[in-house]
Order: sequence, then C-alpha cells, then structure tokens
Amino acid sequence: MSAAGVKVLAFDTFGTVTDWFTGISGAVARILPEVDAAEFTREWRRRYAPILARVESGELGWRGLDDLQTETLHDVATLFGVAPDDDQVRALVRAWRTIPGWPDAAEGIRRLKRGFIVCALSNGSVALLTDMARHNDFAWDVIGGSDLWHHYKPARETYCGLAELLEVQPSEVMMVATHQNDLDAARSFGLRTAFVERPDEWGGAPKDDSGSPDNDVHATDLLDLARRLGC
Amino acid sequence: MSAAGVKVLAFDTFGTVTDWFTGISGAVARILPEVDAAEFTREWRRRYAPILARVESGELGWRGLDDLQTETLHDVATLFGVAPDDDQVRALVRAWRTIPGWPDAAEGIRRLKRGFIVCALSNGSVALLTDMARHNDFAWDVIGGSDLWHHYKPARETYCGLAELLEVQPSEVMMVATHQNDLDAARSFGLRTAFVERPDEWGGAPKDDSGSPDNDVHATDLLDLARRLGC
Repeated sequence: MSAAGVKVLAFDTFGTVTDWFTGISGAVARILPEVDAAEFTREWRRRYAPILARVESGELGWRGLDDLQTETLHDVATLFGVAPDDDQVRALVRAWRTIPGWPDAAEGIRRLKRGFIVCALSNGSVALLTDMARHNDFAWDVIGGSDLWHHYKPARETYCGLAELLEVQPSEVMMVATHQNDLDAARSFGLRTAFVERPDEWGGAPKDDSGSPDNDVHATDLLDLARRLGC
Repeated sequence: MSAAGVKVLAFDTFGTVTDWFTGISGAVARILPEVDAAEFTREWRRRYAPILARVESGELGWRGLDDLQTETLHDVATLFGVAPDDDQVRALVRAWRTIPGWPDAAEGIRRLKRGFIVCALSNGSVALLTDMARHNDFAWDVIGGSDLWHHYKPARETYCGLAELLEVQPSEVMMVATHQNDLDAARSFGLRTAFVERPDEWGGAPKDDSGSPDNDVHATDLLDLARRLGC
C-alpha cells in the first residue's frame, strides 16, 4: 500500500459507489414492462462509453450526459422493438440520478473523509451527482462533474482539472474506481490509483475484478479501502 | 415569507456563515503582534471588495482570491508600518481558509439541507471553501467557488452560473447573505433573497443589519432561517 502524500480521493460513481444495474433495471421493468429489463439495461450501459468517446474524439460537439443517454436509449429501444414516449424517456434518463449506493458506500465515504478530501469524479453532471449524493447520503466534499470541464473521462482535463481545482498536484490525488481503464488513464496523468471490486456491477454477468498490479491499492469495497488507508 | 418554488439555497460565506473578524484578527495578533490586530483586520477587509471590483471592471485580468488578498495585505502592512516575510504573508492569506463558523452555522446548514440543496456561493476558491467546510463541518451539497466561473460577485456569471450548474432557473435559487449589495445583485438577476443578521461581523464596529424590505426573508441567524423556511 503506498498512499503516502495523497490528499484527495476522487471516486468514479457509476459502478464504483452506486449500483446502476439494480437501479436502472428496476426503472426499466417499471416503465417498459414489455422488455427484458436486465438485457435492456446492460445494452444501454454498453453504449455509454462509446458515445462519450465520440464527444472526446471531436466527432460530436460538447453535450451533457443526459442528452447522450437519451440518444443511446432511443437506439436500444429500437433494438428491443419498443418506442418509449417523451415522459418515459425522461423518467429513464432521470433514473440515473437515484440509483442506489452499494451497501458500503455511504459509510465508506464518511470514514475516508476523516483522512482525505473526498470527491466525486464522474461523467455525470454536477446536478446529477448532487441528486445522487442527496439520495444516498454521500458526504462528498466536492462534486467533480463533467460539465465543470466539458470533457469526459478518460480525458486528461477531468483528472488534472480536479487536481487544479483543489490546488494539489496530480500525484496527491488517488482515483478510486472499479474500472481499470479509468485507473490506467488516471495513472498516465500522474494520479495514484485504487481498484475497488464490484463483482455484481453487471447484475450477474461476468465482470473482471482482477485489477492491474500497477494500482497502488486493491480493495474489496470502500470499507476495506478505508481500513487499508488507515481511516 | 415567500420561498415557494425555491430548490437551492446559495450562501455567501465570509461574514454570513463564518466569522472572519475573529479568525483573521486572531491570526494577525499571533503573526504580527506589533500591530493593532482589530484595526489591521478591518482595514484588510475594507480592501477586499474594491480589488475584486477591479477584476470585474477589466482593469485587472482574472486572478484568484489568494493573489488578490496577498496584494491588499502588502498595502495594509505598509500602512501599518510592518513588513511581513513570505511565510507570514502566506500564513495570513491561508488563515481565511480556517476562519470559524458562526455558532449556528453548521447546524443551520444541516437543517436547511433537509429541504433544499445547500451551496456555498462565495468569492473564495473551491479549494479555500473546501478547507473552510471541512474545518467547520459545513455539509454543503455543492461548493460554488469563484474559480468555477472566473468571476467575482456581484457579477451575473456567479449567480446565474450556479443556477445553470444545478439545472434550475435563477428564480429557484435563494441567495442567503448578510450583505445587502450581494442580495440586491442576486435579485437583479432573478434570484430570491434572504438576509441574515450578523451584528458582530466587524468585531464591534457598526454594521447595518436592517436589510431591504425587498428581501423575501429576513432572519436573525441560520437556525431562524431554517424555522422560517420550514426545515
């Protein structure tokens, strides 16, 4: 464990502190009862990273996450042969604001806050992440939403933008995520990294939780991370 | 009282939730024992709004609050016939990060958070306000620092920038401050306003706490504000 000099913990949110599969599949089952909610949810989530990458590549101009999720939702609905109306689309997109935290998340964040500045660093907007935090009692010090920088992870501007905002060096920030690509990007920009296992992220579908040996810390959940970081 | 439709409370910090006079005069007495700490502190504070206004007028390019406070500190030190060294200057400027909350502030913010999204909206930086919040246990949902917009209150970009960040209309935001000019500006841009009395803000020197009849709410402190807003 090498967290010496770390002042800030930056948490990925979707998957790392919240259980999007349970939250979204529940909303899909309620709003679109005619589809297989689990498969619909996984397919929607698979289209998340690719459309953000199209913004970062410059193919699409800056657009907020809700707009991108609306576009991919329409694509998935077509694939599943359903045509949700505007209210249903809005309800499904808004459902990402109230997905539940993992059982250890709120308490883990609270414990880690004793020793570190704790921040969300997510591709959600500040408003979305504020709703998520209030819904789940996440005691963030600072909410780093993609709209602060008009960039999506794994873009450098998000990781280094948070460090700049908090007036620390990138090496004083530790990225906490259950996605190795997020951590690999963070490390490439000088941040430290902590992998958190979330074997149920995809609702029973396979998930690689091995984590790279390059990570500074590997934890089974946020309470374990707190113990490993001495909080 | 008309707070119907308000979703967000935006709090001024220096003076409204924290007691800068006690915090800074204590630091001055410790670091520069040869000066009259109370008078030195008041003189430093008097130079605060004018130098921010020089940034907003375009006379000075964008500069963070710490840099501006450093410049005015040198001016005041000259006036008082002292020459603090770099470490003393840094300690005095950093002292604004750990000024104490008013006795009602932390609990008031916590109660108001039950009914509203509670945000700092301050001319401090996000990093400064994060230190202040951690020092005083202020449970902000969102920290609106001037570096998010590169503008200082009473500029429109700060008030409307917070509304945009939270995806609400300006009329859904209520500015909470003990300074009528802050509230007048907020109201001119469509926000609601709440005046909070802080008769001791200037450490015994006179302070006008009458508040304009145009304010939506007038409260004696944040616990009184919570009662008036039904929290």
